[in-house]
Amino acid sequence: MDYVINPLGRKVKPHELNDLIADTDILIAGTEQITDEVMGHARNLKLITRVGIGLDSVDLVSARRRGIEVCYTPDAPSPAVAELTIGFIISLLRSIHLSNAGMRERKWQRYFGRRLSEVTIGIIGVGRIGSRVIQHLKGFECTRILVNDVSKTIELKEHPACKIEWVPKDIIYKEADVISLHVPLNSSTRNMITMRELYLMKRDSCLINTARGGVVNEQDLFEVMRKGHLGGAAIDVFEEEPYVGNLVDIERCILSAHMGSMSVDCRSKMEIEATEEVIRFIRGRPLMSKVPDEEYEHKYQS
Amino acid sequence: MDYVINPLGRKVKPHELNDLIADTDILIAGTEQITDEVMGHARNLKLITRVGIGLDSVDLVSARRRGIEVCYTPDAPSPAVAELTIGFIISLLRSIHLSNAGMRERKWQRYFGRRLSEVTIGIIGVGRIGSRVIQHLKGFECTRILVNDVSKTIELKEHPACKIEWVPKDIIYKEADVISLHVPLNSSTRNMITMRELYLMKRDSCLINTARGGVVNEQDLFEVMRKGHLGGAAIDVFEEEPYVGNLVDIERCILSAHMGSMSVDCRSKMEIEATEEVIRFIRGRPLMSKVPDEEYEHKYQS
Repeated sequence: MDYVINPLGRKVKPHELNDLIADTDILIAGTEQITDEVMGHARNLKLITRVGIGLDSVDLVSARRRGIEVCYTPDAPSPAVAELTIGFIISLLRSIHLSNAGMRERKWQRYFGRRLSEVTIGIIGVGRIGSRVIQHLKGFECTRILVNDVSKTIELKEHPACKIEWVPKDIIYKEADVISLHVPLNSSTRNMITMRELYLMKRDSCLINTARGGVVNEQDLFEVMRKGHLGGAAIDVFEEEPYVGNLVDIERCILSAHMGSMSVDCRSKMEIEATEEVIRFIRGRPLMSKVPDEEYEHKYQS
Repeated sequence: MDYVINPLGRKVKPHELNDLIADTDILIAGTEQITDEVMGHARNLKLITRVGIGLDSVDLVSARRRGIEVCYTPDAPSPAVAELTIGFIISLLRSIHLSNAGMRERKWQRYFGRRLSEVTIGIIGVGRIGSRVIQHLKGFECTRILVNDVSKTIELKEHPACKIEWVPKDIIYKEADVISLHVPLNSSTRNMITMRELYLMKRDSCLINTARGGVVNEQDLFEVMRKGHLGGAAIDVFEEEPYVGNLVDIERCILSAHMGSMSVDCRSKMEIEATEEVIRFIRGRPLMSKVPDEEYEHKYQS
């Protein structure tokens, strides 16, 4: 078996991918854009295994038409993303990033903050990651959590001290003090958060996006925050990565480089699971994590 | 009843306090140094109520000799300090502060991190705050927590998935990946962490101090971190505040301006409790939160 490891040391662009995988049978993929054109160039491609959960980078409809199987590792990243989200929430509520930045400029400013049990938390997307975030929040005696999802199919375990309410998204925008997004990027979630939604949010609310960049309109977020709206934001994912936009000028916006899944244990699990799927495929055994049919239906057509 | 509110808009220095409280009967105090000399100038002083838990700023021995009662609000700040501590731990383990700083300089660097369930956590001081931190950690499925305290008087509730071990401090320094301090500052804890203890710690371990500045020798911490030792640190409290030292040059050291108790709910509770104590005193009723005798014994003689 021959293999090629990404020789560029950075995310591969579609036109580079064309050359790299021209003769490849199987592709173990990060978040590289695997477009219809890329698949057109990869004449032998039979299997794509995504190291991760997001499928916005893969043109699923085209893959199916071309008979290319697609599988992914949907469970492995969840614990790491959920923990990072809690870190973001506390950092924002307590202004850790602002005080840390101030201290470097010899500014001693003690910011007033809020505790998790004192605020209303909104979670949009309560699948693998969102429900883990809720689980962690219960450990902080959160009293009110508002939830919503693309489809209301998830059973939420109740908790004696914590009221979890299923409400329309607009109610989350209006009433939550902290809003965290855990939806996939597809045709129904692209630009879910624009100027309209941001201005529905409370002036001091905090927005967290560890899902996918296209879910929040970055330019709209920049505009409203520049005008003083929102207490803070933590953005780990961007429409284009590496990110080079103007949110870097908003000090109360924490920015990180798509690190949701970047814990040693979760990355290892993701990479091992993706590779095991390849071995199953080669041996002609059934695949364990084929992308389910509903993902093809929600698919954003690139 | 006449009252004076701190007119300086910042922490009052001892010589300024001399003038401010010359005729005062009762002092509601922050972390201002209330030395023997200050009490000597305050001829009428009968009661000091500390808004907070730390007593390192009050010369308790002198207060007792002069017949000045001292009370405090030991419970109110705990939830806010414990939450901030969890925020610090996740920020350090996931390098949120480093990625955020890098993004401002257009550096897209994805740091590998570790999850709470994958590391050994050391907690020194398992009183009101330390035990709350442990409670939160259990919600993250931590598997191994090492604890120690000045006196082994605290019963730790066991948890099915989480092994809590009482070990000597040196074992914590050597084996923990994350070390968080929750001890008061007194003669037995001043300079508890110096060069020796820091070099016992693992090269990539993370140190958190939300307790009191004097517990960690700041210059030693700076020296070892400058030489590349320790994965990170989060320091909220300093020997002298506002802090003006050289830790600001260590990027992987998160610095904040003594914000442990700075949540709206906890600050309110602390201030209300301190004021209620004053009312009890004036009415001749029994005080609720007199500083207990053992605090006088541990007292660092200023």
